[in-house]
Amino acid sequence: MTRRKFTLVRRPQGTPVAADFALVEEVAPTLADGQFLIENRFASLDPAIRGWLDDAPSYMPPVALGEAIRATTVGVVCASRNPDFPVGQWVLGLNAIETHSLGVSGGFTGPIDPTNAGSPTNFLSVLGAVGMTAWFGLTEVCKPQRGETLLVSGAAGAVGSLVGQIGKHLGLKTIGIAGGPEKCRRLTARYGFDAAIDHRGKTVARLEAEIRAAAPQGVDILFENVGGVCLDAALMNLRHGSRVALCGLISEYNSVEKVGARNLWQLIVHSASMHGLLVRDYLPRFGEGAVEMAKLVSAGHIAFDEHIDVGIENAFPAFMRLFEGSNDGKMILQF
Amino acid sequence: MTRRKFTLVRRPQGTPVAADFALVEEVAPTLADGQFLIENRFASLDPAIRGWLDDAPSYMPPVALGEAIRATTVGVVCASRNPDFPVGQWVLGLNAIETHSLGVSGGFTGPIDPTNAGSPTNFLSVLGAVGMTAWFGLTEVCKPQRGETLLVSGAAGAVGSLVGQIGKHLGLKTIGIAGGPEKCRRLTARYGFDAAIDHRGKTVARLEAEIRAAAPQGVDILFENVGGVCLDAALMNLRHGSRVALCGLISEYNSVEKVGARNLWQLIVHSASMHGLLVRDYLPRFGEGAVEMAKLVSAGHIAFDEHIDVGIENAFPAFMRLFEGSNDGKMILQF
Repeated sequence: MTRRKFTLVRRPQGTPVAADFALVEEVAPTLADGQFLIENRFASLDPAIRGWLDDAPSYMPPVALGEAIRATTVGVVCASRNPDFPVGQWVLGLNAIETHSLGVSGGFTGPIDPTNAGSPTNFLSVLGAVGMTAWFGLTEVCKPQRGETLLVSGAAGAVGSLVGQIGKHLGLKTIGIAGGPEKCRRLTARYGFDAAIDHRGKTVARLEAEIRAAAPQGVDILFENVGGVCLDAALMNLRHGSRVALCGLISEYNSVEKVGARNLWQLIVHSASMHGLLVRDYLPRFGEGAVEMAKLVSAGHIAFDEHIDVGIENAFPAFMRLFEGSNDGKMILQF
Repeated sequence: MTRRKFTLVRRPQGTPVAADFALVEEVAPTLADGQFLIENRFASLDPAIRGWLDDAPSYMPPVALGEAIRATTVGVVCASRNPDFPVGQWVLGLNAIETHSLGVSGGFTGPIDPTNAGSPTNFLSVLGAVGMTAWFGLTEVCKPQRGETLLVSGAAGAVGSLVGQIGKHLGLKTIGIAGGPEKCRRLTARYGFDAAIDHRGKTVARLEAEIRAAAPQGVDILFENVGGVCLDAALMNLRHGSRVALCGLISEYNSVEKVGARNLWQLIVHSASMHGLLVRDYLPRFGEGAVEMAKLVSAGHIAFDEHIDVGIENAFPAFMRLFEGSNDGKMILQF
């Protein structure tokens, strides 16, 4: 039996190119006692993966050259020498973009039950790390108070669209920034944002003025996914005591020379705070968060979109959609 | 009776030049009922003043063109129509760089008693806003735990030197960054830092490596006064859950094109937080903080230096020392 793996050939310099990766076929691993083999059905393509490709200090080691690209997957156990993971069991885990992953006892992989969750892909989105990032990031890091103003960048993205809707449900005024008129239309029409701002082609000064027009009293909570021009413009609109959840800086991930945050001094003049948001800090509370998100979904408070590309041979262009902004919803690769 | 005022003629573009300011002589204000006249003896020259010269969103309005430059002063009441502020009373207040300031009832000016404080200048330094910035910034914002590692930039400066010594007293390992060998010598010899790093002429990568050598386990608390290269290098050495007090970004204050913080993504990968530090949030607790600082001073835990230039006609070069780094201690202008 063979498996196919989407592997790292060399570390990308700036924007990744196809030649940084290779699709490799190899004999599937033989199972030792306690191990099991997962036939992956879906892989979650996340901006964080870009960080794992660089050899820089981070919260986990970089993907090694020659290894499959690390990703969260949903799959089904197809061979097993572990009674806790029988053949046919659906599982979720931090594995890799590969058709089959080796599961080990005590690893990050756990059983899931898609029959109660609508679709197995929900474990990669609204009930998974994306949903938990939005839930804990907004409720725990930003400590929202009813009536406050929430600004979200990357607001049409997987996390951003959830943050806006959770915020709306919690009684916040929500303003979203996204790239292009179609995404902005979706912000207000589908995700219930009170206002949408298109950042495409705009200077910091222009974007700053548009945020001010939408939030004349300033922003209490900034949920930042983008960085660069978006972050600099947003920082100029903070209120006293405002909170910034720093979830991502996707506009910077492919930059060799980073633009940086040039208006950071606004944190000082407004006694504002910025919190790096790493969802795995909340792993022990994922169950609690998933219950909360499931309630919101059942009650019809959450619209959620997935963008599913099919075939491991499409892993590279599917991954690059995240940086081009050409995905419409949570980016998922189906095997 | 006349007074002399150091006024703003035009807003500085980047680094201030002498022609941005003018020394003006005018008739001293006539007192209305409830008012009093302060003969200023000392003015505190602080980096924050640079921010007040720009027309940008801040925590207080910019200094208006033609007005005296706002500064905290210590002086003596020399004329009074207010029984709470009799002639001869020492006072501290947010006034301006001028020989005489008008005091009003209910304003920011309050009585002080220098006989119990060593020198009246202590109210501009260790017992004043500088001391309170160090005390509340470290103890409240950074929540230090004995045994943690504290990195301070601008460590030979007024706030930085206090932060290092308070940190040492609280059982932290202290590392200071300063500009030049003489200041670095002072860090270890006089302020008790465990290690000193000279940032002059160094790249981010070089400075990053020197911080790593001094703090191989990483930095738990970063007290940032400088920004730019210092901040970028420090961010690369954060530990999980570390706290950054953003007190100042003096290297950026005179930049028209700001460098920005290019390694902000490290906040994400280490779940670190950054807190804008505005000491006036702690105004109601200044009494409590002054007691704590006075105890440390009495117990001999604090060495503190003042750099006093004399004469309002020297206000401009004295102020510019802050940005040249040519002051040795808290910068004070004596009238």
